[in-house]
Amino acid sequence: MARTAGSHGPKTMEAIRKAALTLIYRKGYEAITLRQLADAVGIQPGSLYNHVRNKQDILFDLVHDHMTTLLAEVEQAVPADAAPLAQLEAFIAFHVGYHITRREQVFIANSELRSLEAPNHSVIVGLRKQYEGVLIDILRQGRADGSLRVDEPTIAAYAILSMLTGICSWYQPTGRKSAEQLATLHRDLILRGIVA
Amino acid sequence: MARTAGSHGPKTMEAIRKAALTLIYRKGYEAITLRQLADAVGIQPGSLYNHVRNKQDILFDLVHDHMTTLLAEVEQAVPADAAPLAQLEAFIAFHVGYHITRREQVFIANSELRSLEAPNHSVIVGLRKQYEGVLIDILRQGRADGSLRVDEPTIAAYAILSMLTGICSWYQPTGRKSAEQLATLHRDLILRGIVA
Repeated sequence: MARTAGSHGPKTMEAIRKAALTLIYRKGYEAITLRQLADAVGIQPGSLYNHVRNKQDILFDLVHDHMTTLLAEVEQAVPADAAPLAQLEAFIAFHVGYHITRREQVFIANSELRSLEAPNHSVIVGLRKQYEGVLIDILRQGRADGSLRVDEPTIAAYAILSMLTGICSWYQPTGRKSAEQLATLHRDLILRGIVA
Repeated sequence: MARTAGSHGPKTMEAIRKAALTLIYRKGYEAITLRQLADAVGIQPGSLYNHVRNKQDILFDLVHDHMTTLLAEVEQAVPADAAPLAQLEAFIAFHVGYHITRREQVFIANSELRSLEAPNHSVIVGLRKQYEGVLIDILRQGRADGSLRVDEPTIAAYAILSMLTGICSWYQPTGRKSAEQLATLHRDLILRGIVA
């Protein structure tokens, strides 16, 4: 076991987060042990407890951090005083840009919701609803002022989010399309549809 | 351990599939053991080996069965001689209808691709590509005859599939929308987009 990090301080916590992200992404939360995690970080298993109380804390920390950063950044990215269509375009560009480089976080935030215990589960579900709410509000405003055609804003928001987040499952940074090009292609699909 | 099924025959294999589906959905493939699976089926661990060689066989069987049934049914559902737009509508209705009642299979087929070993992994990836190919072909035909506006058929196909499969993550059979209504809402979104 190589000692690659000190056992105290924020640097170690960052190393724990990174190692946990990779381990959970590869094997799933239920399958990993704190011993494996300590080995991956390069610290003694006992030293882990200077930073986290248990495995559940680590999962919650990862998903919580992902969601709160997302919420803080979407507020910056979407101009609240713009027209609904402009807000929608900004939201799409932001969502693609934020998620496309966070494949592991996205996967864990979706596939390991099942492993979050109460009250962690409700906290994360609440943050997700808050984020979904940003898009639902934009669609509702667009419906109200007649600029967007949305019969069911909530269902349309889920559909748009699924479509955009799906990019993470196949995107390769070395591929022939940049994140910006993908955001534009998806924006056009969402705004104009596919019928010529 | 209740003995709820005989240890031979196709009925037991069906019970093993069903129990494995639930266990893997709840805990993830890496975390489950063949002993837990035998307990869930209500047979002796040793009897499992009358039906499957190992845990990997079970995962492959589940995902393979899901994909081959999907491929057989999409061929029936999408009329090969119809116009591209009609084919696209049939594909959307079929995809939603097939997946919406198979939440566990869909989750496992996506989240446990990581746990499939060679050559199982390539076999499943090949079947996925075959299914994606059905939609890509429709979009290409529509682009060729000018009925569909698709700059990137492959990317558009991924986007549509992500959007439609996403319904599984929130759909409740007891909810206020039927599967048919959801298929229609998503069809309209894909065909016409959202700008009024």
